[in-house]
Amino acid sequence: MAYPRRVQELIEDFTRLPGIGPRQAARFVYALLAKDESFLASFAGHLGSLKTETMLCRSCFRITEQRPDQTCEICSASSRNTDKILVVEKDTDVENFEKSGVFSGVYHVLGGSISTLEKNSAEKLHMRELFERVKSLAAKNEQVEIIIATSNNLEGNQTATYIERILEPLTVSVTRLGRGLSTGSEIEYADPMTLEQALQNRK
Amino acid sequence: MAYPRRVQELIEDFTRLPGIGPRQAARFVYALLAKDESFLASFAGHLGSLKTETMLCRSCFRITEQRPDQTCEICSASSRNTDKILVVEKDTDVENFEKSGVFSGVYHVLGGSISTLEKNSAEKLHMRELFERVKSLAAKNEQVEIIIATSNNLEGNQTATYIERILEPLTVSVTRLGRGLSTGSEIEYADPMTLEQALQNRK
Repeated sequence: MAYPRRVQELIEDFTRLPGIGPRQAARFVYALLAKDESFLASFAGHLGSLKTETMLCRSCFRITEQRPDQTCEICSASSRNTDKILVVEKDTDVENFEKSGVFSGVYHVLGGSISTLEKNSAEKLHMRELFERVKSLAAKNEQVEIIIATSNNLEGNQTATYIERILEPLTVSVTRLGRGLSTGSEIEYADPMTLEQALQNRK
Repeated sequence: MAYPRRVQELIEDFTRLPGIGPRQAARFVYALLAKDESFLASFAGHLGSLKTETMLCRSCFRITEQRPDQTCEICSASSRNTDKILVVEKDTDVENFEKSGVFSGVYHVLGGSISTLEKNSAEKLHMRELFERVKSLAAKNEQVEIIIATSNNLEGNQTATYIERILEPLTVSVTRLGRGLSTGSEIEYADPMTLEQALQNRK
């Protein structure tokens, strides 16, 4: 026996979400069948208009609401220091920095990291736009600072090295986030790489 | 900073699915933003018409496609023995029996189990319909057999006892699925309850 056709179709839709297998997808669909028709209609409406109601900020490439100037609320806020650019892999990284409130500059969202397995993965990232943005900023100002905040793993570090290389011809300050022990981490459970980085970055 | 409005709304929709928290919901939404517009439109269409394109089988209360006779393909198949009714909690339980191919009768989906915490939870289940169904079947035939296949936990066993009680006045055979060691289970790791049931049901 197969699931009813519409149930089966929705199960397949849900399995295209990250980390969702057929069993959990089926649980989702049966849970939805128990919900109000109005909830389903509103959920469907939100899904269908997700892309038409959002856009990429033309300055930092974050996903943002549709705005007339095509620039997100961070890039257009007068309170932010536009000469300090924090380069991140994903939108949710911006979210995390903003929640912590530790950064008052602006962002540049790459849209991922350079993959070791995938050929030309750098071309899918907003690297050229980063270069152009930094170049035109550096032409107007000497105080430009780029902080690379990619993940501390193979792909993240490769990406950081790539960025350092392409920004080298421009006379701007390029730094990476400090590496070492995270808050709350115990020496006993720290991995060798973290210990090595913590030793190197001692002060 | 908040997420863009439409992103936030969709995150809230996804957190209404079982086991999904805000972080995973955000991952879903950003993954969807990377998909084609056409996939989103079709996903939204499937969601919006989920309830209008399905119905409850008027005989067994499984969710099924819309069919003119309002009866699912199992209940209306001439190859099935309609005098043997397997009573289960959920649609996915039917799915599992059908996949194993070990049962040639028909089903009755209760729509859940009797909860110890929730008052009158039995009233939300298709109990009355089970009684009426068995009663009218028993009037025509002496060979009716009801097999209770609820979960082997507190709620499932309570539900089974409740069913046995309401079907008692009818002269039909009512059995429960055997309890004991599952295929592949090792004595070393079996819980005391399973061992006790395996001992009682030895043959």
